[in-house]
Amino acid sequence: MNELYVGIDIGGTKMLAALVDGDGTILSKARQETLAERGAHDTIDRLIAMTESLLRESGAAGAEAGIKGIGIAVAGILDPAQGTVVLATNLGWNNVPIGRMLEERFQCPVNVLNDANAAALGEWLAGAGAGTEDIVFVTVSTGIGGGIVSGGHLILGFSGSAGELGHISIDRNGPACACGNRGCIELYSSGSAIARRVRNDIRGGDPRTSPVLRQAGGDADRLTAQHVAAAAEEGDDYANEVLTESGSALGVGLISIIHLTNPKKVIMGGGVSEIGETLFGPLMETVRKHGIPDLVNPVQFVKAKLGEDAGAVGAALWRQYERMRNA
Amino acid sequence: MNELYVGIDIGGTKMLAALVDGDGTILSKARQETLAERGAHDTIDRLIAMTESLLRESGAAGAEAGIKGIGIAVAGILDPAQGTVVLATNLGWNNVPIGRMLEERFQCPVNVLNDANAAALGEWLAGAGAGTEDIVFVTVSTGIGGGIVSGGHLILGFSGSAGELGHISIDRNGPACACGNRGCIELYSSGSAIARRVRNDIRGGDPRTSPVLRQAGGDADRLTAQHVAAAAEEGDDYANEVLTESGSALGVGLISIIHLTNPKKVIMGGGVSEIGETLFGPLMETVRKHGIPDLVNPVQFVKAKLGEDAGAVGAALWRQYERMRNA
Repeated sequence: MNELYVGIDIGGTKMLAALVDGDGTILSKARQETLAERGAHDTIDRLIAMTESLLRESGAAGAEAGIKGIGIAVAGILDPAQGTVVLATNLGWNNVPIGRMLEERFQCPVNVLNDANAAALGEWLAGAGAGTEDIVFVTVSTGIGGGIVSGGHLILGFSGSAGELGHISIDRNGPACACGNRGCIELYSSGSAIARRVRNDIRGGDPRTSPVLRQAGGDADRLTAQHVAAAAEEGDDYANEVLTESGSALGVGLISIIHLTNPKKVIMGGGVSEIGETLFGPLMETVRKHGIPDLVNPVQFVKAKLGEDAGAVGAALWRQYERMRNA
Repeated sequence: MNELYVGIDIGGTKMLAALVDGDGTILSKARQETLAERGAHDTIDRLIAMTESLLRESGAAGAEAGIKGIGIAVAGILDPAQGTVVLATNLGWNNVPIGRMLEERFQCPVNVLNDANAAALGEWLAGAGAGTEDIVFVTVSTGIGGGIVSGGHLILGFSGSAGELGHISIDRNGPACACGNRGCIELYSSGSAIARRVRNDIRGGDPRTSPVLRQAGGDADRLTAQHVAAAAEEGDDYANEVLTESGSALGVGLISIIHLTNPKKVIMGGGVSEIGETLFGPLMETVRKHGIPDLVNPVQFVKAKLGEDAGAVGAALWRQYERMRNA
């Protein structure tokens, strides 16, 4: 029987549990609201129940007994050795020993992993990075994050916090970021940044914003990067300009990452990446124009394949990855 | 008998060969002018002769027969699998199969390695990084380069060109770099950049430059970063300001590297790093002020230990490292 793993991705609003085989194929999955405001124990109780019913309903006889490992993807500061979530701001968690709690219940090894690194691992082993040893995974949604695999090795850093791709500065004199730095790419290229830029222009009375505003039903507060993308698709110059600038800024940040890590593939995930060519065209143009040719020319830019499942799949495959390295 | 390795660092002006034991201790070494203008074959012939006499004179009976591997550190584009230097601009080399040539002569495995990555490996295994699994090595001299070790894994990239630390941009609107990018840290913080900045101020008639110019014997063309450091040491405000700006710019670049790789130690090497506190003070202040606290606060900044030997030692230890990984 193929080995089974469970991957759990705990986000600020939703949590996802997936039963995954050794190839990273999802056999079944379940999703639920995180309801973090009820506290960590409530969330974890529901998460355990969700995993139990996932196993029960999977049809795989003896699935629970056969689970080889559980991986948990979560955004925050972790203590991987202890299986503890030290601090997860979006969940309000503080020193939650989730690893031990799940180990006791399911009697198998449990690992905690930064969510963006988990997604990078998932895309590498079972998604758009399959067959390559050197990838950079970038996820662009509300914020920007990601992970790096180099020579078949997931870069975790000494406290498991590597891969803060959104907080690379491209302008030391740029606007202040909440992280403490200035000019982080998240301030230019994330979904929030794109929407914020347009909202500012609307408030400034820029008449060129009206086609985008129309996409958002006339409500500036509702406006998202997707509305900008929709206007750009209809040929609106202003929307195109906004996305060109965002893509180009992301390209400048990616050049630094490529110069540091010399990847073969850059995998683009996250909701904003769905925008496609309007964003990626300028991104790739910037990278090719300003990067060191020997480093940037061989890079393939590809779209992520696993979508919102990437974190759970990567977390599930962690044990597999560990054994692969120790083989 | 302790195992023996040979490390060879081929620079644009000098080459160094070292006989190294398994702990990275140099048993003997020899240095020679590279004389690259005579062509690759001439350089390699002299390099072989230098290695032969190193082994002969080492006193280690049967040393030649006992060599477990030779590592070659060189700046350029490499094909590590073939042991070929594809392009080394500073040597004028084009597709030089140096690996095979040395394998034939010495009958042992030969590896080629980017010089900055080799130095990173040396400092990690036998220098200031010993005992840590996650380091960033930065070498600041004429240019800026380096290498990253993450989780005990040297980041090489898919074509062995990772670690272009000098070509991280900190200002997308900054000055153009020869690499094609804009605002690379090499343009602000390298020895050449520091000297260029002062020379420009001298040409601009800035009277504050006179103490630095005096250090260079009144000759602006001779002026180096060391003269600026000497003036700063004597309390010159202008010299201090120049080094503060350089250190701070390097700090901005290091924040991006730390956010990406979450290291435990940052090891500073290269001639300019000898300047010490005047440069490192502002560097660390910038990092601590603008980096993500959980990522930057635990980082130890330390000086490199192996000096100019780092590349040869790292190249020599490559086989050791490979076996360590496969153990």
